[in-house]
Amino acid sequence: MTKLKGACLIGQSGGPTSVINASALGCIEAALQSESVTRVYGAANGIKGVLDERIYDMNQEDPKELSLMKYTPSSVLGTCRYKLKDFKVDDTDYQRILEIFKKYDIRFFFYNGGNDSMDTCNKISSFLSQHDYDCKVIGIPKTIDNDLAATDHCPGYGSAAKYVATTCMEVYRDAKVYGTGSITVIEVMGRNAGWLTAASALAGYKDMGPDLIYLPEVPFDMDKFIADITKVYNEKGDVLVAVSEGIVDKDGKYISTYFTETAKSTDAFGHAQMGGLASNLANFANTKLNAKVRGIEFGLIQRCAAHVASATDIEEAYMAGFAAFKAAEEGITDKMVAFEREAGPVYSCKTKLVDLSDVANFEKKVPREWINEEGNGMKQEFIDYALPLIQGESEVPKEDGLPRFANLKKVLTTAK
Amino acid sequence: MTKLKGACLIGQSGGPTSVINASALGCIEAALQSESVTRVYGAANGIKGVLDERIYDMNQEDPKELSLMKYTPSSVLGTCRYKLKDFKVDDTDYQRILEIFKKYDIRFFFYNGGNDSMDTCNKISSFLSQHDYDCKVIGIPKTIDNDLAATDHCPGYGSAAKYVATTCMEVYRDAKVYGTGSITVIEVMGRNAGWLTAASALAGYKDMGPDLIYLPEVPFDMDKFIADITKVYNEKGDVLVAVSEGIVDKDGKYISTYFTETAKSTDAFGHAQMGGLASNLANFANTKLNAKVRGIEFGLIQRCAAHVASATDIEEAYMAGFAAFKAAEEGITDKMVAFEREAGPVYSCKTKLVDLSDVANFEKKVPREWINEEGNGMKQEFIDYALPLIQGESEVPKEDGLPRFANLKKVLTTAK
Repeated sequence: MTKLKGACLIGQSGGPTSVINASALGCIEAALQSESVTRVYGAANGIKGVLDERIYDMNQEDPKELSLMKYTPSSVLGTCRYKLKDFKVDDTDYQRILEIFKKYDIRFFFYNGGNDSMDTCNKISSFLSQHDYDCKVIGIPKTIDNDLAATDHCPGYGSAAKYVATTCMEVYRDAKVYGTGSITVIEVMGRNAGWLTAASALAGYKDMGPDLIYLPEVPFDMDKFIADITKVYNEKGDVLVAVSEGIVDKDGKYISTYFTETAKSTDAFGHAQMGGLASNLANFANTKLNAKVRGIEFGLIQRCAAHVASATDIEEAYMAGFAAFKAAEEGITDKMVAFEREAGPVYSCKTKLVDLSDVANFEKKVPREWINEEGNGMKQEFIDYALPLIQGESEVPKEDGLPRFANLKKVLTTAK
Repeated sequence: MTKLKGACLIGQSGGPTSVINASALGCIEAALQSESVTRVYGAANGIKGVLDERIYDMNQEDPKELSLMKYTPSSVLGTCRYKLKDFKVDDTDYQRILEIFKKYDIRFFFYNGGNDSMDTCNKISSFLSQHDYDCKVIGIPKTIDNDLAATDHCPGYGSAAKYVATTCMEVYRDAKVYGTGSITVIEVMGRNAGWLTAASALAGYKDMGPDLIYLPEVPFDMDKFIADITKVYNEKGDVLVAVSEGIVDKDGKYISTYFTETAKSTDAFGHAQMGGLASNLANFANTKLNAKVRGIEFGLIQRCAAHVASATDIEEAYMAGFAAFKAAEEGITDKMVAFEREAGPVYSCKTKLVDLSDVANFEKKVPREWINEEGNGMKQEFIDYALPLIQGESEVPKEDGLPRFANLKKVLTTAK
């Protein structure tokens, strides 16, 4: 069997993370070194860049500048939230993708994203295969939400978790400083899975964490919430709370919509846009307790705070991208790289390959048994799971006291 | 002349910073080493702890744990916002302070805070002196706002500025990632002086900063704002804006009050409480431009993000505390330690002493000539001023991938 030879294309999709570029770098560096690869391309803004033929020639980049991608947050190639239709219903986009793949002789395609992206990846793989176009398609996971199925954890989660835990410790110190009663509510990203909010418990492991933690996995009840904070407030004189943006009541209704039913738009995937929950909950609590209240929204900083990225996460993200290329080079297709935690007392992690269809459109929740019975805090099982993922510090080079991020040329193939 | 001998007391006041504890440590370590000092005390929650006789015995602390104060954010002794009355009108508090000072034989008193704290310091100094109680009173500056008079810059500013610049660079990368039109407004602390908002221009120095920067020093005009963002948006397709929480119109009215006149409380000093401006401005801009909008409030994280503190700031903060004790030990009183930038191409900074009355209740603004003519960006003069202040990284020890902050025993003198 002759080995497949041709060009390699990588795209980034969905919400960026602090380490999605480390994954892209792993894949790009492996491809640049491979004898099977004639040219390495990057799609501008994910699959949209393929459809629009906005494709960067990665061979023209300075390798040293490329290497800084390891420490550079956000998707350097640009990202998108573009949902491909079912090709049995409308194959317009797929025909265009096939046309572009043929034009550039793309034989290795990598899509770096979350579950929606794995769905995209899976559909493209099926379409190409049904049209007898030989192209190896491998998904590279990323998400701060840590909600992908079939993998122990996701690249991007460890760094966001480290940001959440570190910042919770700092806010804990700050919130208690006046010695007067205070209620501080921190809002953490996570629409349907509470992994990132749970990471605030790592600060609690250092005795500087939230007194109360609420995840979307447990139905949120306003009366219970008020009872919980009143209890802590009466005992300690102040309360630090962490909530997922996506907490819901027993009927599945977002708590955020309790405070405002207006102006809630949805993104291209029909996800509700969140925001303002922390302040609203803090103010609501204050109608019952007369304390100094504060709502803090970590917002998009939690997904791009590369300066406090986890070295473990960076290295694993790179490893995932590298493994993706190696799998494709070996002729494997229609898989996603996943992480497997090896047994034993010392944390170690290796890659494996899982079916894209096992990942696409599923969301992995925090196990109920890792949440305390009251549904307002995390148990040791979660700490044991998450603590290894935030180890080590980013070695981002500094220039003038500020991070030196990658500045790529991003030469379009269509450029004159 | 015999040297004064007795106990030393330090209190922290006003909003905490990432390095206020470094200053306290400088003072405490100098005092612990001094033969003039019989005992070193810390006031719990500033002057309130003196009034309530909640005083910590710092001699009982483990020196190694104390030394971690250098990297620990927020006021470890606790802080307050308590304004002393004029003692000619009501000297109740002052009599109580004198009583406590006599009880503990406090002969060296240090107050670590902003301009309100220097006012407190000045009043106490005057009262003690008028009552023939010999006590050396020295103020140690701190404020992320950098608005103290008579000093080149303030401890706390460099670290907050480094956080603002670093995070702006990260948000810049993130905000532009979808390749679709976006307007992102970042709200930075600063009620009356724009120093910290101006620090976002350091990210711009790295070509990853806000397109537009608005400080309280220049009257803000909504029509001009819309014209400014429309211009940038039409040229670049997206806009990143940084605004001070305290921007005001030509009549001195806070822009934040344009959006909501309700629920605006004031703190003990009559300062208006701010918030929500970023989202409101972003949404307002979007009524004119139909883009994806986002408001980001850095909130209190900017004053406690010790993990990204400036090493220069940490060392200078320590130096200020140390110099304060040394001055008192030499018999100097009624002064504040200030910073003087030495002439020459290489940045260097030394301490000097200034009159408390020259600092109390003044606010130093950003010079108009450091702001561009249009009033929507910073000039090179500001970069030259601020860049040296953010140099170097915090060497906070890590444990389990998280910062190891100081855990003091905080033994009250009244404890059994």
